[in-house]
Amino acid sequence: MSYDEILYEVDDQILTITLNRPDKLNAFTTVMRDELIDAFDRADEDDDIRAIIITGAGRAFCAGADLGKGKETFNYKAQGRMDDSGLHRDGGGRVTLRMYESKKPIIGAINGPAVGIGITMTLPMDVRLASENAKIGFVFSRRGIVPEACSSWFLPRLVGISQALQWVYSGRVFSAQEALEGKLVKSLHAPEDLLDAARAIAKDFITDTAPVSVALCRQMLWRMTGADHPMEAHKVDSRGIAYMGQSPDVAEGVSSFLEKRPAEFTMKPSVDMPDYYPWWEERKFE
Amino acid sequence: MSYDEILYEVDDQILTITLNRPDKLNAFTTVMRDELIDAFDRADEDDDIRAIIITGAGRAFCAGADLGKGKETFNYKAQGRMDDSGLHRDGGGRVTLRMYESKKPIIGAINGPAVGIGITMTLPMDVRLASENAKIGFVFSRRGIVPEACSSWFLPRLVGISQALQWVYSGRVFSAQEALEGKLVKSLHAPEDLLDAARAIAKDFITDTAPVSVALCRQMLWRMTGADHPMEAHKVDSRGIAYMGQSPDVAEGVSSFLEKRPAEFTMKPSVDMPDYYPWWEERKFE
Amino acid sequence: MSYDEILYEVDDQILTITLNRPDKLNAFTTVMRDELIDAFDRADEDDDIRAIIITGAGRAFCAGADLGKGKETFNYKAQGRMDDSGLHRDGGGRVTLRMYESKKPIIGAINGPAVGIGITMTLPMDVRLASENAKIGFVFSRRGIVPEACSSWFLPRLVGISQALQWVYSGRVFSAQEALEGKLVKSLHAPEDLLDAARAIAKDFITDTAPVSVALCRQMLWRMTGADHPMEAHKVDSRGIAYMGQSPDVAEGVSSFLEKRPAEFTMKPSVDMPDYYPWWEERKFE
Repeated sequence: MSYDEILYEVDDQILTITLNRPDKLNAFTTVMRDELIDAFDRADEDDDIRAIIITGAGRAFCAGADLGKGKETFNYKAQGRMDDSGLHRDGGGRVTLRMYESKKPIIGAINGPAVGIGITMTLPMDVRLASENAKIGFVFSRRGIVPEACSSWFLPRLVGISQALQWVYSGRVFSAQEALEGKLVKSLHAPEDLLDAARAIAKDFITDTAPVSVALCRQMLWRMTGADHPMEAHKVDSRGIAYMGQSPDVAEGVSSFLEKRPAEFTMKPSVDMPDYYPWWEERKFE
Repeated sequence: MSYDEILYEVDDQILTITLNRPDKLNAFTTVMRDELIDAFDRADEDDDIRAIIITGAGRAFCAGADLGKGKETFNYKAQGRMDDSGLHRDGGGRVTLRMYESKKPIIGAINGPAVGIGITMTLPMDVRLASENAKIGFVFSRRGIVPEACSSWFLPRLVGISQALQWVYSGRVFSAQEALEGKLVKSLHAPEDLLDAARAIAKDFITDTAPVSVALCRQMLWRMTGADHPMEAHKVDSRGIAYMGQSPDVAEGVSSFLEKRPAEFTMKPSVDMPDYYPWWEERKFE
Repeated sequence: MSYDEILYEVDDQILTITLNRPDKLNAFTTVMRDELIDAFDRADEDDDIRAIIITGAGRAFCAGADLGKGKETFNYKAQGRMDDSGLHRDGGGRVTLRMYESKKPIIGAINGPAVGIGITMTLPMDVRLASENAKIGFVFSRRGIVPEACSSWFLPRLVGISQALQWVYSGRVFSAQEALEGKLVKSLHAPEDLLDAARAIAKDFITDTAPVSVALCRQMLWRMTGADHPMEAHKVDSRGIAYMGQSPDVAEGVSSFLEKRPAEFTMKPSVDMPDYYPWWEERKFE
């Protein structure tokens, strides 16, 4: 259960995943891709984990794709990495789609440079904080390639289409301050304070809240962001109220509130998700 | 035509609906649900009403669902309130979906605490103002239940997905100031100034504008928010320009502008909506 | 190749289109409509053009539809301009849908009053700058007509649904400062500095970037803004990475980066778009 390119540490109900190739500025590899996906699988099954923080070891968050193969880096055909049907799946997208499915809130603690996949991997996270030393770049236009990791879907939803286009067209590496002004990150912090700030937000999500409810909230809000009519929310809301209304967590939630005492929720995301969950059909890659 | 749990008052073309259970902090009940829906039905048919303000009686806006049934409050099965097919429809969602269909602009005047359905019912309103004394909470995670009233659809569209998730995960009750900074409300006001501020906005929507045009604007903007391609707007725009271009309101609107005099629009939302309205198929609950 | 109602000038890889009926405050006509569409067709085929600026001649940007036909202006039936099937296509929408398809970034330089189609034509542009002297109005409700040019689709995505509704209900003409505060425009400028500011942004998009990559970025971000699930981006990302990863532009982009020298990209939008482009089916008007 140990990893080669990430650290996986659980403390006080918070999982901290650290991108851990500090001598390579945590450049993204297929190993890191698979380890991140595995880490999210484990976190969803582990009820001791209530929130997830992602940060980088050393001075960078993630410098982007490892360019060790030089100009052939993205030439998956030359590398024999296309599948039989001629399809190739973007590795960054496999990671961000896995994050999208997470039952646990995800907080990005961008401790230094975050470029290419280094920043696009943070977009499906629920909150992004940054060190004052962070630098950010959606550099695709300067490498001749295209935005990946589903960033064309996530970025306009986070910062608006006009700001998203400006950063993506330009490909410039820009300051943490510009990221703050553009609403890409929630707040800036001195490097030594960044993880404490991330943990404070994680605590806010954990304290006095019901884990199954939080897991449902995550999927409801992200998925309805893509729905075309509020009736789609009404259908899911109605099932949620009907199911959870009969549950021990709601009985405890209402009782504790009326008795003015802390709630003790007992339902577990690993085994107690409602019978209608997942309510969506898995979206196929094809 | 009188109600038990709301007030319905028309003055100067503005309908003010007041949630009116002040001794219960205007807690939401099935009676209030049905009365609100009925009030919106009446408002749409009444051409003397050009805009709607919603506020609360006493010191609260709405403290959320009435918890009079204690821990069984949301257990609709135990209460025998599931329908034969095992379906239950969220009452908050029935109200917000009715607001979504409104022909008249809706302004929320959040005069005090607005918690649970107390705040989610305001999300399909077109503008929200708040008293400096308001407190707001999306408290679902602290009761073990899920967001309702289609709030998973509306909230990310109003404040962005990241801010929406943070408030919903936490379940904290937060200040009016935080709501302002998070763009949930347009402005804050001293309690005694709140209704005047809401009326000033209503006046801005009414003065010199054509009621049928405003009704069409409301449905066009809300519905296109959920559409996947601008061509869907072009189809509706084209029908609107073709139909209204032949109408007395446009003849008057252009003539009065050219003659530099106030317009006197004569078309009425109760009887003069275009032949292509509604242009959408009703979205079924199923 | 010359036009009657617009100017078309290419300088330093930037096309500047100037609405050119200054004695009529650049009021929009069917001639202007067709010339704008033609100009965008030419720009897409001309690899010497890397970005497009749109501005107005004289003191206005565009005062809206030409009202020379008075109260019959929008009565296309009376003018015999409905087609056989009784359909009419909104001219503003034909222009904004053409802009939506553009391969080149578009910057609006709003030099003065922009009202009706004068402002809605700017919404599919990627960035909007304004002169301090600009005045803006979504005046439809005051003419009795409906929003056009697909503005019901674009405007909520730029400024949020609540701000969009407020401007559209009211129909007021408002200041450049209000447009800035509402995030409709990125920045305000003294009139004499406006075009230089627009050119500086165009330069930021052009410098050191690959034209085919920029063209793909534009379509990916705009189109995914309307997609319901990030998987839709993943499908297109994966094709983009697979195709472009084998291309000379990516080889040059990565090599030049590793060699710390400026890139010299050779692929041309006129002939080198990927084989999967366009990846969407054309959306029909019907």
